[in-house]
Amino acid sequence: MRITVAEQPVGRLNDAWRLAVGTGRFDLALRRDYQDSLALVQREIGFRHIRGHGLLSDGVGVHRPYEYQGRRHVRHAFGYVDQVIDAYLELGIRPFVELGFMPSGLASADQTVFWWQGNVTPPRSHNEWADLVRATVAHLVDRYGIDEVRGWPIEVWNEPDLKDFWQDADADAYHRLYEVSAHAVKDVDAGLQVGGPALSPGADDTWLPRFAEFVTDRKVPIDFVSRHAYTSGPAQHVPFGVHQDLAPAQRLLEQFASPRRLLAGTALAELPVYITEFNSSYRPDNPIHDTAFHAAYLAPVLAAGGDVVDSFAYWTFSDVFEEVGVPTALFHGGFGLLTHRQIRKPTFHLYAFMNRLGGQILARGADHLVTRDDTGRIAVLAWAPVDVTGREPVDNHTVRLSLPIADGTARSAFLLRSSVSDEAGNAWRAWCELGRPPSPTARQLDVLRQAAEPARRHASLPVAAGRVELDLHLTRHEVTLAEVSAVTDETPPWWDERRLLGREPS
Amino acid sequence: MRITVAEQPVGRLNDAWRLAVGTGRFDLALRRDYQDSLALVQREIGFRHIRGHGLLSDGVGVHRPYEYQGRRHVRHAFGYVDQVIDAYLELGIRPFVELGFMPSGLASADQTVFWWQGNVTPPRSHNEWADLVRATVAHLVDRYGIDEVRGWPIEVWNEPDLKDFWQDADADAYHRLYEVSAHAVKDVDAGLQVGGPALSPGADDTWLPRFAEFVTDRKVPIDFVSRHAYTSGPAQHVPFGVHQDLAPAQRLLEQFASPRRLLAGTALAELPVYITEFNSSYRPDNPIHDTAFHAAYLAPVLAAGGDVVDSFAYWTFSDVFEEVGVPTALFHGGFGLLTHRQIRKPTFHLYAFMNRLGGQILARGADHLVTRDDTGRIAVLAWAPVDVTGREPVDNHTVRLSLPIADGTARSAFLLRSSVSDEAGNAWRAWCELGRPPSPTARQLDVLRQAAEPARRHASLPVAAGRVELDLHLTRHEVTLAEVSAVTDETPPWWDERRLLGREPS
Amino acid sequence: MRITVAEQPVGRLNDAWRLAVGTGRFDLALRRDYQDSLALVQREIGFRHIRGHGLLSDGVGVHRPYEYQGRRHVRHAFGYVDQVIDAYLELGIRPFVELGFMPSGLASADQTVFWWQGNVTPPRSHNEWADLVRATVAHLVDRYGIDEVRGWPIEVWNEPDLKDFWQDADADAYHRLYEVSAHAVKDVDAGLQVGGPALSPGADDTWLPRFAEFVTDRKVPIDFVSRHAYTSGPAQHVPFGVHQDLAPAQRLLEQFASPRRLLAGTALAELPVYITEFNSSYRPDNPIHDTAFHAAYLAPVLAAGGDVVDSFAYWTFSDVFEEVGVPTALFHGGFGLLTHRQIRKPTFHLYAFMNRLGGQILARGADHLVTRDDTGRIAVLAWAPVDVTGREPVDNHTVRLSLPIADGTARSAFLLRSSVSDEAGNAWRAWCELGRPPSPTARQLDVLRQAAEPARRHASLPVAAGRVELDLHLTRHEVTLAEVSAVTDETPPWWDERRLLGREPS
Amino acid sequence: MRITVAEQPVGRLNDAWRLAVGTGRFDLALRRDYQDSLALVQREIGFRHIRGHGLLSDGVGVHRPYEYQGRRHVRHAFGYVDQVIDAYLELGIRPFVELGFMPSGLASADQTVFWWQGNVTPPRSHNEWADLVRATVAHLVDRYGIDEVRGWPIEVWNEPDLKDFWQDADADAYHRLYEVSAHAVKDVDAGLQVGGPALSPGADDTWLPRFAEFVTDRKVPIDFVSRHAYTSGPAQHVPFGVHQDLAPAQRLLEQFASPRRLLAGTALAELPVYITEFNSSYRPDNPIHDTAFHAAYLAPVLAAGGDVVDSFAYWTFSDVFEEVGVPTALFHGGFGLLTHRQIRKPTFHLYAFMNRLGGQILARGADHLVTRDDTGRIAVLAWAPVDVTGREPVDNHTVRLSLPIADGTARSAFLLRSSVSDEAGNAWRAWCELGRPPSPTARQLDVLRQAAEPARRHASLPVAAGRVELDLHLTRHEVTLAEVSAVTDETPPWWDERRLLGREPS
Repeated sequence: MRITVAEQPVGRLNDAWRLAVGTGRFDLALRRDYQDSLALVQREIGFRHIRGHGLLSDGVGVHRPYEYQGRRHVRHAFGYVDQVIDAYLELGIRPFVELGFMPSGLASADQTVFWWQGNVTPPRSHNEWADLVRATVAHLVDRYGIDEVRGWPIEVWNEPDLKDFWQDADADAYHRLYEVSAHAVKDVDAGLQVGGPALSPGADDTWLPRFAEFVTDRKVPIDFVSRHAYTSGPAQHVPFGVHQDLAPAQRLLEQFASPRRLLAGTALAELPVYITEFNSSYRPDNPIHDTAFHAAYLAPVLAAGGDVVDSFAYWTFSDVFEEVGVPTALFHGGFGLLTHRQIRKPTFHLYAFMNRLGGQILARGADHLVTRDDTGRIAVLAWAPVDVTGREPVDNHTVRLSLPIADGTARSAFLLRSSVSDEAGNAWRAWCELGRPPSPTARQLDVLRQAAEPARRHASLPVAAGRVELDLHLTRHEVTLAEVSAVTDETPPWWDERRLLGREPS
Repeated sequence: MRITVAEQPVGRLNDAWRLAVGTGRFDLALRRDYQDSLALVQREIGFRHIRGHGLLSDGVGVHRPYEYQGRRHVRHAFGYVDQVIDAYLELGIRPFVELGFMPSGLASADQTVFWWQGNVTPPRSHNEWADLVRATVAHLVDRYGIDEVRGWPIEVWNEPDLKDFWQDADADAYHRLYEVSAHAVKDVDAGLQVGGPALSPGADDTWLPRFAEFVTDRKVPIDFVSRHAYTSGPAQHVPFGVHQDLAPAQRLLEQFASPRRLLAGTALAELPVYITEFNSSYRPDNPIHDTAFHAAYLAPVLAAGGDVVDSFAYWTFSDVFEEVGVPTALFHGGFGLLTHRQIRKPTFHLYAFMNRLGGQILARGADHLVTRDDTGRIAVLAWAPVDVTGREPVDNHTVRLSLPIADGTARSAFLLRSSVSDEAGNAWRAWCELGRPPSPTARQLDVLRQAAEPARRHASLPVAAGRVELDLHLTRHEVTLAEVSAVTDETPPWWDERRLLGREPS
Repeated sequence: MRITVAEQPVGRLNDAWRLAVGTGRFDLALRRDYQDSLALVQREIGFRHIRGHGLLSDGVGVHRPYEYQGRRHVRHAFGYVDQVIDAYLELGIRPFVELGFMPSGLASADQTVFWWQGNVTPPRSHNEWADLVRATVAHLVDRYGIDEVRGWPIEVWNEPDLKDFWQDADADAYHRLYEVSAHAVKDVDAGLQVGGPALSPGADDTWLPRFAEFVTDRKVPIDFVSRHAYTSGPAQHVPFGVHQDLAPAQRLLEQFASPRRLLAGTALAELPVYITEFNSSYRPDNPIHDTAFHAAYLAPVLAAGGDVVDSFAYWTFSDVFEEVGVPTALFHGGFGLLTHRQIRKPTFHLYAFMNRLGGQILARGADHLVTRDDTGRIAVLAWAPVDVTGREPVDNHTVRLSLPIADGTARSAFLLRSSVSDEAGNAWRAWCELGRPPSPTARQLDVLRQAAEPARRHASLPVAAGRVELDLHLTRHEVTLAEVSAVTDETPPWWDERRLLGREPS
Repeated sequence: MRITVAEQPVGRLNDAWRLAVGTGRFDLALRRDYQDSLALVQREIGFRHIRGHGLLSDGVGVHRPYEYQGRRHVRHAFGYVDQVIDAYLELGIRPFVELGFMPSGLASADQTVFWWQGNVTPPRSHNEWADLVRATVAHLVDRYGIDEVRGWPIEVWNEPDLKDFWQDADADAYHRLYEVSAHAVKDVDAGLQVGGPALSPGADDTWLPRFAEFVTDRKVPIDFVSRHAYTSGPAQHVPFGVHQDLAPAQRLLEQFASPRRLLAGTALAELPVYITEFNSSYRPDNPIHDTAFHAAYLAPVLAAGGDVVDSFAYWTFSDVFEEVGVPTALFHGGFGLLTHRQIRKPTFHLYAFMNRLGGQILARGADHLVTRDDTGRIAVLAWAPVDVTGREPVDNHTVRLSLPIADGTARSAFLLRSSVSDEAGNAWRAWCELGRPPSPTARQLDVLRQAAEPARRHASLPVAAGRVELDLHLTRHEVTLAEVSAVTDETPPWWDERRLLGREPS
């Protein structure tokens, strides 16, 4: 069945999909590989904000107690903070600030999370924590200007509903931390945006209503509400990796929608809702992240997420990440859109295709999104259906569209089609074929970079009655971008392609 | 029929195909577009020397007569010369010096060639010409060192057998010019290489024997012999362009071979022979240069040229060229491997494929060349047959090879295949589909750059009995590079691709 | 005598000094050296617009008559135009369009100007000229957008009052050309800015009133009035150069002011006045341009020009220029702020110093200009007086200032002082000491780049009663920039510089 | 007294000063700031090898034990190792491999050193350690080639004579580690270079003879002997820093010489001796490293060190270093030649000046070193004497030289002089004047970069009787480079500087 796309837009494509992206811990941003990757991501995708853990952890060196003249003092040192944020702004991306984890000099106990040992205990002095928050935010305002920093959301802690991330998953203790932190932020400037509670999936039913009640009752400042979304089941471990069952991608959209549903009728009902992390698996060592399946799986989520939430941040832009230790192979199931050394995964291209869409939505469906930009270029994102059990993969799928061409004089349109699938733009597949080299040579990296390029085709399509008929045949796990533009024909009257090899016409 | 390629090399692939490349006039090398193009060419192909006209023409400003205290003097000014050659060396390419054309202050008459008006008359003073040559060569030696400059061939004039390039095509006058020039070069250093006579196609039967006799009789220094090769018929004009019949490509190889044949038995028999220009058409406005046909047409010439001659220099690396004026469209039939703004033509890729070949020739045929490098990587260049009449294009052609894999332990090989054809890697075709925009927009240039990428595929091929079976199916005008490397399998024992989506095995 | 600078601004420093800069002919902008120079100029100075000759001359290839089916047609080709303007915009500078000179295919006679032979005769068809103007402007609007192009002034021809630049310096013929051109521009869009008459110095008394009368009477569109300003006497020739007497720099300011004076009371009285070229000498081969004298000579002109005129454009930003031929030595008296290969001349630094000034003028005088920016940084431009006869150079000159420090808590201020003079930041002097090498080696170019750096000093100045006392001692031909900022002292209490080498205090 | 420098060289300047340089721990090399700094160091100085701690520590992730099918295995993972060494080679520097510290999965106890917690205990299995060494070295040989890796010295551990760096400073345990490691290295290839024992200052009297005896008796492979050298007294602590007394710099030369003295007569007498670390203070938080004093203090050591030892490696090239934690201010007394963000310290310039010296030593003295390169350029390094007590600084010091000019025709020489001192090229001083901002703003960083530039002067010096008289006046803590080259005068005969401002001669 061919879908006849009307000329009139049916909606606008907003920026929720690109409002934020996740990253490994703050000090990893000092690395060249990280910055090279971020530069590439910004050039081809263009996120607005970046959010990660560890701003206040020991590796960044902000909180520095010392003795002088017999008394304890604290120095706040921002050398690394500034190096990172300077780099972010240079690369055209802004911080989405996360306050955490606890500096060891301020921690009340020893519990840590991750290979890199982020301390997850409450402060032993809430005053000193407030000083730390105030000093940090004030420093940012001094260095980058109040107008700039007012645009950076500030989130208090990460997944306090999980014992791994917050000692005992103690809600009261989190509420206290939130209150102290929110006031400290607003002490610097009332126009700054503060929010939370950055819940893990599955906790918002119990946590969100209590949190809403707490901040309402105690008039604690709050500018946005946040949670996370993942669809994977329990980890099935192998050495240096896991496998997991996945729920259908639709579950992500349901998770996105849940805070607004839960907060309906509360004082927080109108606040922006930010999904500050989402992905399929929550594990940085699940090879599903590296596959073409993954792009096709997430395509409908990217196409529709902005309808239900204000931001949903892919966790994370790069495999430069060390929560379970230093990776032991180039492809290791990391969250990244890019591997180390900037090999683009299929999901990278899904995002790059999103970046080519126009602002007007002309049509949408279970396997496609049709957009147009202000120049009249039509951009179609289409994807093959996936089977999360892996048992019945779909090897052929067709999307048939009839597209309106605004330019009444055009007799042809130019089609540029870019695709990733199991066969194309799939560097992981090439890496498997190369024998899965843990640390590829320079030559192998070149090959992987070439293999990571989407397949591209172009064609001239006839325009008839102001319409172009476009048939998109999709192979297994294919995600495709089809761009269609009206052609202005500037061929001179004397051109005759049959004469390329001479043959003076008789 | 499958060709069984033996493990033992049957020959060496020499560097004749990359020893030199042609360029538009000397001062065009000051342009950024030119240098950007040359940088790309050097990165992906890597020529050794570059040769063009106009070093001594007015635009470079070397020969500068002036009056002082009532007398005529000549100043030799090398500012532009140095800017260009500094850039060449930075880009990893060396000059192939051509002495010409005549500075207007030294010319004996007004005749010029080209839109940019190179004067083609003899010097009015052979002494002053000798001074000019000596001063120029001595300056190069001063600036770049004698060891460096001894490696730069120095050719006297261009196509003196044509009236357009040398007044009256006067052989005696050329012989005199050659003699004066050769001595002037050797005055600076006896180890410098000088040569000529840079004949146009068709003239060597009459000119070469006389030239050989002249330099032998008069003991004029000569270090190499040079001529040009083209296969096009007369120009059939249209506005801003021409069409021409082409002879089969084999004619180029015959032209390459002709000097050695003609000089057999003379004192010049053992000298290196350099084809200092070759192409299909000799016109910079024949659209055949832009096509996929052109790459397939020249492939057998590149594969075999080094057998018959010491150098054959493609004329020219870039469309930055102005012999018939400023181009009026991006694709205009220029000689270039690259258009303005670095769109790669199919023939560019033919050269880039040559650059991936190994030094050992394992097999060769009418449609293929099989090579291996020192790492054991096998690289096959294969091409579809072409029909120069255009009447019977070959749309399907297959090359079947059985390749030896040296690594006895490998159970699979990795194939990377890159192709250009009428459909793929053919930016000109995309430009036609875009409506032939004379000066494409930034967005159109991006599209053209993408369209110019070769199609790439990769696969894992089984190794059986130390061999890989490779079937190369070629479409119309396809030129393909197939690279095959033995795989070292580093897959860990626990890897099971069936578990990508979980499904704990029972 | 010390000048006590008040805290309250006495005026604003406008952008007239940087609104435009001159350049060699249009197609020289295709060169890498040109673009490298422009990039440097934009990075350290930052001009808004760039103006030069030759947009419509043959070297750019716009106007292309041809025969087809027995009739004459004209193709308009914009490949080079687009390459240049794309580069300009990339470098952050916009065109100041000059319509000229005459394409040879449209010229009514053979008269040319300059080594590069710009044709200076009227069109043989004013209709075809109007077509050319319309096609060119319409193309710019298509490619760059109407909002962008409305910001580009469009000037008709260059110095029509001189016989060298306009056949017979025929005012009526110019008026006709202006009228046709202005209408052609406005045919494309009424919001585009068109102007003239781009007079040479000395002509405006006679030409401007007539021109004003002409455009008023005939209601010809005009959006700005333009003329040029130079202060040199007749050329005294030596080989490859000239020397000239100079009038005092004040004469430049008088020339700037003259159009507004002459147009007072006419319909053109309120139009912007643009000095579309100015310099000391009008010759591109007068070594005075290379000297420290030149920066000190022009300093008061830059400091005050914006008071009397809307723009005054230094002619030219770079020595990449060929009006009298290819230069025969690196320093050859070119107009450029930069030599070939980006050696910064003292006048470059004068402009770079201007770029460091703040928007608030706090004080001004015959030898200084005191400014402050929005961060409170005070920037003083000061210069030594010059003697245009060269007979009584001023070797010592002092400017004494008392500066207000806004930050009431600061106990010290940081001074950064940068100077060029006969001794410092004077690459030309170093080049003389090197023996005036016409084409310096790579090592000599490094030395010249180092010699071109301004001398820089820094110091801590005490703040007393909210003031800093600043004594600027100036040597011969010195131009200095003194930047003074209040210091926030973050020295920790334990710091004791006396302990750098240990010596535990007893 | 003027020193008359003879034309005949008195010696050769070898590369001991640049053979190696120190660096912070291995994984810091992943950072962009680190790599930017190393690129600058290589461009302006050019070291051959780089040595630091931590190759085998947990942060690099090489040693990775895991369970599989119920048994313990070890995977060796080289992803980060390759990223770092690829970057080193790209930047033109090679590793000086240090084997250490102990991976936690192989350590026999918990003792660690530094803020970043390098484990300093013996392996719990010497076999597994040998496997680790073999796997690491074999991987390097695979990836970089045996010819390359044979040029990389491999040192076993660091300062085993100190309890902080090796549990109990147990010599026997070190000998065992050395023996196992040396054999493991030679198992990979007998041509690899292995050495030790990397002693701290003060230990070689007792350790070196025993070590020599051990390796001789047991025929343990050894290719070089190494130790460290420092001149500072005990640390006098202040918050985030120390002060220390310094011994005279001559003590460094004595320490350099000691291994050869102690090994005379042993089987190790002829081995190369490498000082694998040296500096004044051994503390990364002593502000003396940031000063001009430091350059003047080390100048005689750099000038003479190559006479007594084969390599002496400055510890370290950059302040990117974290042994005592993340720095709390830009200038914090780090070892670096560069601060974070590439501010060049005076000692950087000392090294950059060394890099400008020629290979022929013409004269040397307590305050100078006169060299000449193959082009005839004379380069003089001279320095002011320093007082390590800080009590009697030398504010004026003069070095008078008479230099031979080889070019008999030169009538003048060009002098380029570059200096750093308390006043010039001293960014630390500017930072103090700026109020010691811990994390300077972008503008302050610009100021510091400018302040870090050496003062440069140039002049024309007359050549009389083949000699130039050069008086070098030195201010406090000045180190100066004076480069003198014979001038070829290419001034045209018509040049008359008096005519710059016209004045036609009468």
